[in-house]
Amino acid sequence: MRIQQEQIDALNRQQDSFHRQQLDGLRTLYEEKRMAQTIQKLADFQVALPSWALGAGGTRFGRFSYGGEPGNLEQKIEDIGLIHQLTRTAGAVSLHIPWDIPEDVAAIRQLADELGISFDAMNSNTFQDQAGAGESYRNGSLSSVHRAAREQAIAHNIEVIRIGEQLGSKSLTVWLADGASFPGQYNFQTVLQHTEDSLKHIYSELPDDWKLLIEYKPYEPHFYSTVIQDWGTSFALANACGEKAFTLVDLGHHLPNTNIEQIVATLMKKGKLGGFHFNDSKYGDDDLTVGAIKPYNLFLIFNELVYGMENNPQNPDLAWMIDASHNIKDPLEDLIQSLEAILIAYAQALLVDRNALFTAQQESDVVRCQEILQHAYRTDVRPLLREARLRAGGAFDPLETYRSLEVRKQLVKERGSSTRATGL
Amino acid sequence: MRIQQEQIDALNRQQDSFHRQQLDGLRTLYEEKRMAQTIQKLADFQVALPSWALGAGGTRFGRFSYGGEPGNLEQKIEDIGLIHQLTRTAGAVSLHIPWDIPEDVAAIRQLADELGISFDAMNSNTFQDQAGAGESYRNGSLSSVHRAAREQAIAHNIEVIRIGEQLGSKSLTVWLADGASFPGQYNFQTVLQHTEDSLKHIYSELPDDWKLLIEYKPYEPHFYSTVIQDWGTSFALANACGEKAFTLVDLGHHLPNTNIEQIVATLMKKGKLGGFHFNDSKYGDDDLTVGAIKPYNLFLIFNELVYGMENNPQNPDLAWMIDASHNIKDPLEDLIQSLEAILIAYAQALLVDRNALFTAQQESDVVRCQEILQHAYRTDVRPLLREARLRAGGAFDPLETYRSLEVRKQLVKERGSSTRATGL
Amino acid sequence: MRIQQEQIDALNRQQDSFHRQQLDGLRTLYEEKRMAQTIQKLADFQVALPSWALGAGGTRFGRFSYGGEPGNLEQKIEDIGLIHQLTRTAGAVSLHIPWDIPEDVAAIRQLADELGISFDAMNSNTFQDQAGAGESYRNGSLSSVHRAAREQAIAHNIEVIRIGEQLGSKSLTVWLADGASFPGQYNFQTVLQHTEDSLKHIYSELPDDWKLLIEYKPYEPHFYSTVIQDWGTSFALANACGEKAFTLVDLGHHLPNTNIEQIVATLMKKGKLGGFHFNDSKYGDDDLTVGAIKPYNLFLIFNELVYGMENNPQNPDLAWMIDASHNIKDPLEDLIQSLEAILIAYAQALLVDRNALFTAQQESDVVRCQEILQHAYRTDVRPLLREARLRAGGAFDPLETYRSLEVRKQLVKERGSSTRATGL
Amino acid sequence: MRIQQEQIDALNRQQDSFHRQQLDGLRTLYEEKRMAQTIQKLADFQVALPSWALGAGGTRFGRFSYGGEPGNLEQKIEDIGLIHQLTRTAGAVSLHIPWDIPEDVAAIRQLADELGISFDAMNSNTFQDQAGAGESYRNGSLSSVHRAAREQAIAHNIEVIRIGEQLGSKSLTVWLADGASFPGQYNFQTVLQHTEDSLKHIYSELPDDWKLLIEYKPYEPHFYSTVIQDWGTSFALANACGEKAFTLVDLGHHLPNTNIEQIVATLMKKGKLGGFHFNDSKYGDDDLTVGAIKPYNLFLIFNELVYGMENNPQNPDLAWMIDASHNIKDPLEDLIQSLEAILIAYAQALLVDRNALFTAQQESDVVRCQEILQHAYRTDVRPLLREARLRAGGAFDPLETYRSLEVRKQLVKERGSSTRATGL
Repeated sequence: MRIQQEQIDALNRQQDSFHRQQLDGLRTLYEEKRMAQTIQKLADFQVALPSWALGAGGTRFGRFSYGGEPGNLEQKIEDIGLIHQLTRTAGAVSLHIPWDIPEDVAAIRQLADELGISFDAMNSNTFQDQAGAGESYRNGSLSSVHRAAREQAIAHNIEVIRIGEQLGSKSLTVWLADGASFPGQYNFQTVLQHTEDSLKHIYSELPDDWKLLIEYKPYEPHFYSTVIQDWGTSFALANACGEKAFTLVDLGHHLPNTNIEQIVATLMKKGKLGGFHFNDSKYGDDDLTVGAIKPYNLFLIFNELVYGMENNPQNPDLAWMIDASHNIKDPLEDLIQSLEAILIAYAQALLVDRNALFTAQQESDVVRCQEILQHAYRTDVRPLLREARLRAGGAFDPLETYRSLEVRKQLVKERGSSTRATGL
Repeated sequence: MRIQQEQIDALNRQQDSFHRQQLDGLRTLYEEKRMAQTIQKLADFQVALPSWALGAGGTRFGRFSYGGEPGNLEQKIEDIGLIHQLTRTAGAVSLHIPWDIPEDVAAIRQLADELGISFDAMNSNTFQDQAGAGESYRNGSLSSVHRAAREQAIAHNIEVIRIGEQLGSKSLTVWLADGASFPGQYNFQTVLQHTEDSLKHIYSELPDDWKLLIEYKPYEPHFYSTVIQDWGTSFALANACGEKAFTLVDLGHHLPNTNIEQIVATLMKKGKLGGFHFNDSKYGDDDLTVGAIKPYNLFLIFNELVYGMENNPQNPDLAWMIDASHNIKDPLEDLIQSLEAILIAYAQALLVDRNALFTAQQESDVVRCQEILQHAYRTDVRPLLREARLRAGGAFDPLETYRSLEVRKQLVKERGSSTRATGL
Repeated sequence: MRIQQEQIDALNRQQDSFHRQQLDGLRTLYEEKRMAQTIQKLADFQVALPSWALGAGGTRFGRFSYGGEPGNLEQKIEDIGLIHQLTRTAGAVSLHIPWDIPEDVAAIRQLADELGISFDAMNSNTFQDQAGAGESYRNGSLSSVHRAAREQAIAHNIEVIRIGEQLGSKSLTVWLADGASFPGQYNFQTVLQHTEDSLKHIYSELPDDWKLLIEYKPYEPHFYSTVIQDWGTSFALANACGEKAFTLVDLGHHLPNTNIEQIVATLMKKGKLGGFHFNDSKYGDDDLTVGAIKPYNLFLIFNELVYGMENNPQNPDLAWMIDASHNIKDPLEDLIQSLEAILIAYAQALLVDRNALFTAQQESDVVRCQEILQHAYRTDVRPLLREARLRAGGAFDPLETYRSLEVRKQLVKERGSSTRATGL
Repeated sequence: MRIQQEQIDALNRQQDSFHRQQLDGLRTLYEEKRMAQTIQKLADFQVALPSWALGAGGTRFGRFSYGGEPGNLEQKIEDIGLIHQLTRTAGAVSLHIPWDIPEDVAAIRQLADELGISFDAMNSNTFQDQAGAGESYRNGSLSSVHRAAREQAIAHNIEVIRIGEQLGSKSLTVWLADGASFPGQYNFQTVLQHTEDSLKHIYSELPDDWKLLIEYKPYEPHFYSTVIQDWGTSFALANACGEKAFTLVDLGHHLPNTNIEQIVATLMKKGKLGGFHFNDSKYGDDDLTVGAIKPYNLFLIFNELVYGMENNPQNPDLAWMIDASHNIKDPLEDLIQSLEAILIAYAQALLVDRNALFTAQQESDVVRCQEILQHAYRTDVRPLLREARLRAGGAFDPLETYRSLEVRKQLVKERGSSTRATGL
C-alpha cells in the first residue's frame, strides 16, 4: 500500500489556521531564532525502525496477533515507508539477521530508496537456535565455554556484517543475551574473557567506516547474571576492541531507579556512546511505547544528548532506534506514538536555555536550575513538531491521518489477517 | 515579615499583556466552559503545609542550615502566611506535637485567622523519645510488646486530639514508625494486634466530626519490617476502627515501581482514602520537591483523584499536605515549587476529556486512551494557574515575586542566620 | 518408565553408615523429641507439581527444548510419579485447563492412584485465546469491559471446577492475568468491580467443600497495571466472595524488596491464606528453582508458615505447589532441587526454638532473636530430610539416584527427543 | 575495661567436649587437609572496625542512645580490643578524620599495639561542614564548581594521609558523597571532570606504599544523582589516577537486585578491587548486621573473593571493613554478629570444591554447579570458626562470653550512660 501525498496534504490543509495560531502562541515564549533552529533540528532528526517490530509482540504467556502483519522483508520496509511518509522521521530500517536476509539485494535497496529509507545498524542473533545449526546457544554464544559455539557465533556476526555491507549499513549492533540463571553456572571471569576475545575477532572483520555497538542489559532472558550486565562492562569491552567500538544504551536495560542520563553524559564525555534504543518501562525491559510512562525522564536524557551533541566532538553521531514490543496496539500506530514522544522530548531539550542553566549551576542556584528545565519541559512543543513535519511533507497529525486513510484496513485487505511477521 | 498586597499587584501588572496572550492561546485547545471550571477548581484548591518543613531538612549524614529559619510556632505560621499570600493555595497548616504545642491558643488562632490559615490534620510523634518521657519508643510505641509504652503512646495521641480540638483541627494523622530492623525481632501477628487495639483506643476518643488518618510505609526508620507496611494493612486497620478511620497515602512510602494511582482508585472506590502527602522521589522516601522527578506519575495520580472526587460520593473530602524535606533549597522556595507542580498536575487532570476516555476504554482503543491522557498532559496549563492566582490576589509568578521582594533576606535580618526550626 | 523400588533401596544401602553418623551429629544440637517431630512433619509434607512444568520453559526470546518431554497428560503424571517415588514429597498434581483435559477420567484417576498422586488445585486459563474461542482475551477476561468476554471467562472457570470435581480436586486457583500496559487503558474502578462480580459468580458455583484461591501479581504479562496487583486487592476480593475464598501467594509475584513473610503472617492471622506457589527470583517473576537465590528468605517465610500452622486454627490447610520455569535444566532435576530446598527451609523453621524466641521478643532482645533464627538456619538439616525420605521408601539422594538410573535417557528413548509438553 | 584471658579460657573449657564432637562430625563431609586449610585461613582473616561505629547509629528521624558509648579515641580502640580479644578477627581499626584526630600519636599507637590492633584505611569527611571551616560542602567538595571548596577538600584529604602516615596506615578511602538532589542541579560532565582532577591531586600526594580506595554509591545523601554512582565510574577514575588507585565495594551501595558478585569478579580480573565494606540490607544502604538479610548472597560474593585471591595475582590484598549502623543493638554485640557472619560465608566459600565446579562449568551441567555451591553453603561450618578462634586464644562463643562477663554493664559503669560517641 502507498499513500498519495495529496491525501496527506488535503488533511493538513484543514488544520492550517489552527496550526498558525498555535505556533504563534509559542512566539510569546521563545525567540524566533531559537524556534527556527529547533524546527530545523526536528526536521533533520531520523530514527531507525527495527524490522522485527512491525508485527505484534508478546510475552512468554502468549501473543495476540494483529491483522495485516508484514509477511516478508519487502512488506516490512513498506510499513516503515508508510510511517516515514506520515512522520518524516522514520527514514531508516534496522535489520535483524537471520530474520531479514534479503533474497534480492538490489531490489530491496531500490525499494528502500524509493521510500527514502536507509539501512541503519545491522543486528545479529545468537540468542536462538536456528534450524539446522551445528551448535546450540543454550549455554551461551560469544561467551560460551564451548569453542565451537563461540566460533559459530563469531562467524554469524561476520556474516551479518557482510550482508550489511551489501545494503549500505555502517554498523553492527551486538546484543549479547548470554547469561546464567543460577549461581555457579559459569565463571564470571572466564565468560568475560571469552566475550572480549570474540568481540575482538568480530571487530577485526569490521570495515573501516563501520562501528561496533555493544549493548548491555542486567537480566532477561537469563535471571541471575548477564555477561554484559551494565555500561561499565560494555565500556570496558569497547575500549578493549578499539576506537570503532562503542556502547549502546537501551532505555529498558537498567536496574530499578538507575540514573540513565548520567550514564549518557559519562559515555559522551568519554566519546564512547554509539547508539540508542528507545522504549519506556515501569518494571523491567517492558518495551512499551516511548514516553508512555516516564516522559520527564526521556526529556532529561535528551537534555544530556543535546548537550553532548553540542559539546562533545569526541563522540560520533548516534544510531537512533526504537526498540519496543507492540503487544496490544497496532504496531504502526504504536510506532507513530513513539516517534511523537521522542520528538517532543528532543524539542523540549532544544529549548532549554543553556546559558542561563550554566550560570545557575555556577551559582549553585538549585531552585533556578530546576525552573529552567521545567520551563522547557512544561512548554507545549507540539506546534514545533507539526511545523517541522509540514515543511517536510509529512502529516499535521500522523496518527489521525493514518486512521482517516484506513491504512490498517487496507493492509489487512492486501495481506490477510493471519500473516505473522518474523520476529519476537 | 508581611508582604504588602500592592507590592504583589505592581509586579503582576507587568505581566498582564503576556498573561492575556497566553491564556487566549489555550482557548484554541479547550472550550471556554472547561477552562472556567478548571480555573475555579484551581482557585479553590488548598494544600496544608506542615509546620516541621519550614526549616532545612537533612539526612543521617548531616544537615546544612538555612538562614532565617522560624524559631517558634508564630514564625512558622508567618512563613506559611507568606507562601499563601503569594500562591493563594497554602491556606492551612498541619501541626506536629510535641514540636508545636501552642503556648497561647487564642493568640495562635488569631494569627492564623489574619493570614487566612486554617488548622488541618494534627500529627503525633511516637518515633522519638522526648526528654523526661517515662517510656522509650526504642522498641515500638502503639505496637510495642511493652504495655506501658503502648499506653504512653495512646495517651500522647489523645493529647494531640485535645490540642487539635482547641485549634479547630478536624483530623489526626498517625504515622506509626514502629518496625523491626532484623528478622525475628518481633512477632508480626502480635504487633499487628497491638496496633489494632491501640488505634481502636485512640479512635474511641475521636470527636464525632473528626477523622483518623492511618499512614503506611514499607521501610525507614526500620529496615526489615514496618508494622503498617502497605495500603492493605492500613485499610484493614481503618476498617477495624470504624467509619471515621481512613488510609492516608504518602507518595514516597512505596516500594520501587508501585502503581500508586491504582491504590488511590481502589481506596476511593472503597470510600477509604482520607488524606494525601505530596512529595517526589527517585529511590525511596526521598522527600523531594513535588513533581521534580516523575511529573507524569503525579498527573496520573491526579487523574484518579479527579475521577474519584467526581464519582465517589462514598469517599470524604481529602486532607492534602506537602511532606517534603528541604535539604539544599530555601524551604519557602521549595514549597512554592511544590505547590506549582501540584496545581499543574491537577489542572491537567481536570482537562482530561472524560467522556472521550470513557468511550475509548469501552472500545478498548488503547492508542486513543493514551492520546487523550497525553493531550491533557502535554498542554501548557500554566496560564490557568496564573489566572486562578490573579483572581485570588496572589502573584503572577510566586517564585519571582518572592525573590524580587527579597523575602529571605528580610527573614534573616529579622530572625538571624542561626535559628534552627524544630523538626527533622 | 517406572523405577523399581529395589533399585532405590540398593543405592540407599550404600549410604547407610554415612547417614547414621550425620544424623547422630545433629543429636548434639537438638533434643530427640524435636528431631522426631521434625522428621515426621517432613515425611508428611506434600507439594503439588504443576502439569505444565514438566517440559522446558522459555522466555519471549525463545525456548530451548529438552528431550523426552511428556507428550500427554498420562506422561506428565508419570513424570510426577517418578519424582514422587524418589522424593516422597511430590504426591500431588495441579492441572491446567485446557492443556490437561483428561480424555478418560477413570483411567487418569487410576494411574494417579497407582503412583500415589492426588489432584490438587485446578488452574484455569484466561490469558490466552484458544483456537475457535468466540471471544478474545486480548482486552481482559473476568475484568473485561466486554460482557461476552467476561461471560466466556466465567463459563470456562466453571468448566474447570466441573472437571476438577470428576478428578477429586478440592480447589480452583484463579490467576487473573488481566491488566493494562498503558495509563488510561482501563478504568481501575470499573475493572475491579467487574472482577469482583465475575469471581462471585464463579464462587457461587463452587462445591461446598471447595476453596477458591485468588492469586495476585504486580506486573507481567501487562506492564503498567494488573487488576489484582497485590495481596490487599486479593484479600478484599476474597472477603467479598465469602468464607471459602482465600488469597494465594506466589513468591515471585511481588515488587522488589517486599517483605513477603509479613504478608504471610498477616493473611494467616486473618484466616485468609489459602495457597502457596514456590519458586525463587532475583529480578521479577523469574520462576527459578526454589531456594536458588534467596534461601534465607524462604526460611523466614516458612518460619511464619510454621507459626501460623501451629497458632492459627482460623486458617485452613494450605495448597502447596511449585511454580517454576525450567529454561535450562532438566525439568525433573530442577523440581527435585526445588523440593529439597523447600524441605530444608521447612526443617529449619521447625527447629526454631519458639519458646526462647517468644521470651527474647518479650524482652526486646533483638540480638538474641536473631541468634535463635540463625542457629536453626545454620544447622545442616539434610540428615533429617534423608531420614524422612528413607522411612517413606524414597531415595537417600534423589538427584544422584535419578542420574544413576539414567531416567532422562530412558525417557528420551521412550518418547523421543522432539516432543514438546503443552504449557508455557 | 580489659577481659582476662583466664575468664575466656574458663568458659571455653565448658564447651570442649561438644566442640570436639561437632568438629568430628564435619570430618565425614570434608577431607582433613581441606579442613585444616580452611581453619588456618579463618584464623588469618582480619577485618577492620570503623571508629565511628562503636556507638549507636540513627536515622534522620532520630537516634536512641546506648549506655557506655566510647567518649574518645582511646575508648574506641579499647572497644575494638575487647571484640578482638573475643573473636581474634578484629585486629584493625579504620579511623575517620576529623572525628578521630589523635592528640598523642605515640600513646595511641602504643595502646593499639598492646591490643593487637593495626591501623587500616583512613577515611576523610567532606560531606559535613566542620565548625570554622572556610568553605561549605553544601554544594559539593571534590566535585564542586567552586574552586575554593575543591581546594579545601583536597587539602583535607592530604591532611588525612599525613595523619595516617604517623599511625602506620597504608591507604586512604574516599567516599565522595557529592551529588545532586534535583535534575539540572549540576552538569554531569563538569563535576566528573572536577572529581577526576581532585582525585589526581590527592593521588599525587600519596606515599609510594599507599593505596587510594574510591568508593561508589548510587544515592543518599543526595537523591537524584551521585557523582561516583557506580563501579564503572569508580573504575574509570581509578584508572585515570594510576596503579595505586582502586575501587572499593560497599555491599549496601547498589541499586535493587544488582549482581554484586559479578562486579567483584570483574574488578579482580582487572586487578582493581581494593577494598570491601561489609553490611547487609533489604531496601537501600540499610547498614544492617552482616548476613542478617541475605547470607547466601554474602556467600556468593565470598565465592568470587576466594576465587580471585587464588587466581588473580594482579589484584592486591584487600582492605576489609565492617560498615554498619547499630541503631537498636548493642554496637559491640552487633559487630560480633557481623564478624561471625563474615567468617561463616568465608568458610563456606573455602569449602567449595573448585575442581568439581570447574568441570561442571565446562560441561554446562547447571544442576551440578548449583549442587556444588549449595553443598558448601548448607554445611554447618561453625565448628571450623570455633576451632580457629580457640587456637588463637579467642572465645568459643564470643557473644555468650561477652554477655557472661557483663562487658556492657562494666562499660556503662566506667563511662556512664550518657556519653555519645562521635560519628553518625
